[in-house]
Amino acid sequence: MIDIKDRVRNAALRSKIVSAEEAAAIIKPGMNIGTSGFTPAGYPKAVPLALAERIKKEKFKVNLWTGASVGKELDGALAECEGIQKRLPYQTNDAIRKLINAGKMQYTDLHLSHVAQMSRYGFLGGKVDVAIVEACAITEEGHIVPTTSLGNSASFVQSADIVIVEINTSQPLELEGMHDVYVPLDPPNRLPVPIVKVDDRIGTPYIECGPDKITYIVPCDIPDYVRPLAAIDDDAKAMSQHLIKFLENEIKQGRMPKNLLPLQSGVGSVANAVISGLVDSPFENLTVFTEVIQDGMFDLIDAGKLDFASGTSITPSPDGLKRFYNGLSDYRKKIMLRPQEIANSPETARRLGIIAMNTAIELDIYGHVNSTHIMGTKMMNGIGGSGDFARNGYLTIFFSNSIAKNGDISSIVPMCSHFDHTEHDIDVFVTERGVADVRGLSPKERAQVIIDNCAHPDYQPMLQDYLDRATKATGNAHTPHILSEALSWHARFMETGSMKLK
Amino acid sequence: MIDIKDRVRNAALRSKIVSAEEAAAIIKPGMNIGTSGFTPAGYPKAVPLALAERIKKEKFKVNLWTGASVGKELDGALAECEGIQKRLPYQTNDAIRKLINAGKMQYTDLHLSHVAQMSRYGFLGGKVDVAIVEACAITEEGHIVPTTSLGNSASFVQSADIVIVEINTSQPLELEGMHDVYVPLDPPNRLPVPIVKVDDRIGTPYIECGPDKITYIVPCDIPDYVRPLAAIDDDAKAMSQHLIKFLENEIKQGRMPKNLLPLQSGVGSVANAVISGLVDSPFENLTVFTEVIQDGMFDLIDAGKLDFASGTSITPSPDGLKRFYNGLSDYRKKIMLRPQEIANSPETARRLGIIAMNTAIELDIYGHVNSTHIMGTKMMNGIGGSGDFARNGYLTIFFSNSIAKNGDISSIVPMCSHFDHTEHDIDVFVTERGVADVRGLSPKERAQVIIDNCAHPDYQPMLQDYLDRATKATGNAHTPHILSEALSWHARFMETGSMKLK
Repeated sequence: MIDIKDRVRNAALRSKIVSAEEAAAIIKPGMNIGTSGFTPAGYPKAVPLALAERIKKEKFKVNLWTGASVGKELDGALAECEGIQKRLPYQTNDAIRKLINAGKMQYTDLHLSHVAQMSRYGFLGGKVDVAIVEACAITEEGHIVPTTSLGNSASFVQSADIVIVEINTSQPLELEGMHDVYVPLDPPNRLPVPIVKVDDRIGTPYIECGPDKITYIVPCDIPDYVRPLAAIDDDAKAMSQHLIKFLENEIKQGRMPKNLLPLQSGVGSVANAVISGLVDSPFENLTVFTEVIQDGMFDLIDAGKLDFASGTSITPSPDGLKRFYNGLSDYRKKIMLRPQEIANSPETARRLGIIAMNTAIELDIYGHVNSTHIMGTKMMNGIGGSGDFARNGYLTIFFSNSIAKNGDISSIVPMCSHFDHTEHDIDVFVTERGVADVRGLSPKERAQVIIDNCAHPDYQPMLQDYLDRATKATGNAHTPHILSEALSWHARFMETGSMKLK
Repeated sequence: MIDIKDRVRNAALRSKIVSAEEAAAIIKPGMNIGTSGFTPAGYPKAVPLALAERIKKEKFKVNLWTGASVGKELDGALAECEGIQKRLPYQTNDAIRKLINAGKMQYTDLHLSHVAQMSRYGFLGGKVDVAIVEACAITEEGHIVPTTSLGNSASFVQSADIVIVEINTSQPLELEGMHDVYVPLDPPNRLPVPIVKVDDRIGTPYIECGPDKITYIVPCDIPDYVRPLAAIDDDAKAMSQHLIKFLENEIKQGRMPKNLLPLQSGVGSVANAVISGLVDSPFENLTVFTEVIQDGMFDLIDAGKLDFASGTSITPSPDGLKRFYNGLSDYRKKIMLRPQEIANSPETARRLGIIAMNTAIELDIYGHVNSTHIMGTKMMNGIGGSGDFARNGYLTIFFSNSIAKNGDISSIVPMCSHFDHTEHDIDVFVTERGVADVRGLSPKERAQVIIDNCAHPDYQPMLQDYLDRATKATGNAHTPHILSEALSWHARFMETGSMKLK
């Protein structure tokens, strides 16, 4: 307990230190629980585990609001006891996903920049009842120093009647000072977000709270349950190469500064591979304004290529996390964490001129993107921040392998089975086959470029055939479709196990 | 000619006054022509008519970039001679629409806030070659005083090598001072748009140009070809009543200030009816931050209900235009025109907390919206600014009649045939039947509320049946769909002339 007490700097506050079980006991059925955490980084662990134990016995449900996905001690534990009525705004957990797709958990899939303000506005079904926030420390003034993510924590703390702080001793105290906490006023009093460079500091290094507002303090030493990244395969390498070549030409054409513009990169192995690939690019003095800091960013920092990275969470692989902790005294000079409302803000994305890079589950020939649903019905993860960045970036790029399931699925289809990003939002598509630059093109022009440059040869003739027949059938209409056939590729896959014609 | 000369205040510049034919002769085949105009307001007339005559004889095409739709002297004349290769970013002209849907004109349908920056970035296929801008006057310094719209004029003038100014003597000089022209710097040098209240003035009352940059000045006296609005019918009245009741409850629940927040309203008869309906509402001291100032706004000003309206164009009915000109000395104190890049900016929409109100062609049970395509293939008008506001508003509302074509079309369908706004973007749906408040709901929850509150009774059982069977067929998946049936309502309409089952 000595370590805990060192981290609770206000002596009077130490009387609020309780066990996880004691803290979890304050939660009532049906409450809205707002927690820290964005990807498996900085989420509370001890109290959720204790809450799950309680739910197993008492059988009730709560609503869980987070920054984004969180680790197994929160999503996993509450899924196992079926303790969640409604989950928002994002998830990546197998057990949660199964419940969502069995109608046993309601899931509201939101743009990640919308969540904090919608919770403050009271638009999500009441306000946050209990905030549970992981912290490195509590200051003398009772303010909360976050850990490896910031997410929606500050807004949840601001709105909640009950605040539980988990002091996580596995999180190094050197994280203090890496956060820039800024909660905008709500309309009609909101002011400009005064960020004009990626490293501008506009807020406080802690979440404002005050000693009176803290209900309980709970010690915890469970580390972030980060996951390994997939090895970088040839397809990911090819996409990275295509991107570099494309950006080199943008610079040559005068459409991009030599050091590019701030990079945003989605979460996951392909996104990480693309960022890592920039180590071997000619670009220097790069900057990042993104959601999640992954291993690739450390590669860029170590290579001397990256001047500064702003995000809302640090979520490397297990090896990457060690590397981050070991190099913390250097990395902390080049990394800043912001609330996701600011990291993902349309205002800053458009002002800074972000290069938005995200991955698609599928895209269609006219340039729409499905980011969320498998075969139009089953939720995979959620839209996350892709919409925040795609709509507002300087240049919006979506990556996808041209095929999936060993070629039985074409990632490029006649019509998406679900739509998260529309034809109005996307500039460039990249698959391992090549680049489709669709800026300024009409739907039929886009279709030809996407089929020619991005589709897999196994599916190119089928896509061309659909486009040609649809064009003829509609008298060359603006967006040719044969509605009875538009979703038939998905239906065929579900019937036969392949989108290919037998 | 005396009148024209009075409006060209720099004596030396008067030597650049030429005929429309002379000015049109400078345009070369394949050029990108960027014009003023946003809806049939403030677009150039004389030079486009002369250009159309030239194209009739010489047979060539140009690309036409505008603010949004424009009047018949521009879109109509250039459609008639098939003189447009590519049109962007929006249109509402019958002849243009026919060419687009016959593959004879390429059309790029863009978010209206994106156009100016994409044109400056060089993302639309080169830069603007010729800017043709309607003006009230040219100042002593050679700057351009716009007329009834601002649109993308300032950016087009900034980028173009050739600038043609049409001095329109039908536009009263009292319009001078109503504009607030601000062109943001491009990344990485962009700064916050410093608007924090709807009436904040941040720029100049003219488009910066300078005498050297003006190539030709052409006199014109053709008035804006504005169109009558449809009479306000019972369905529109019902929607307006539903909205007022909904907003009253938002105030009561503490989710909205008493004088609401700045209103944005789409273009057209339903939007106008909704705004007019507010005259008989209890709301006072209203403000507007929108694209187009229509008759309804004058009703609100005259009723003493509207403190200030910011837009990018003034496009009343023919009677409304007379009313506006006659009352100009008063209206000009309460109306300001901004570039559409600012009027529609995500930054200001989110900061000011706009109530975004737009109309849908169709919506589906899960809360996606089609704003652009008839039966998924034919372009109607375009997305316009609906996406700019819907994504970033404080509260996002879409209006639609529950049925169309005398009941043979249900505006609420199992799956949209085209997607412009997704489930992630919309808070509330209003039809003449009622209000579906879908904030914070999961897809299946949304479906039930939309079917119950908004669908027409003729289609409610069919929609419920689809939802029930899809839920069963997918094992209660997140977004239940039967893909082979999802678009069958549209296919049935095209085959039988009705979405109803025989």
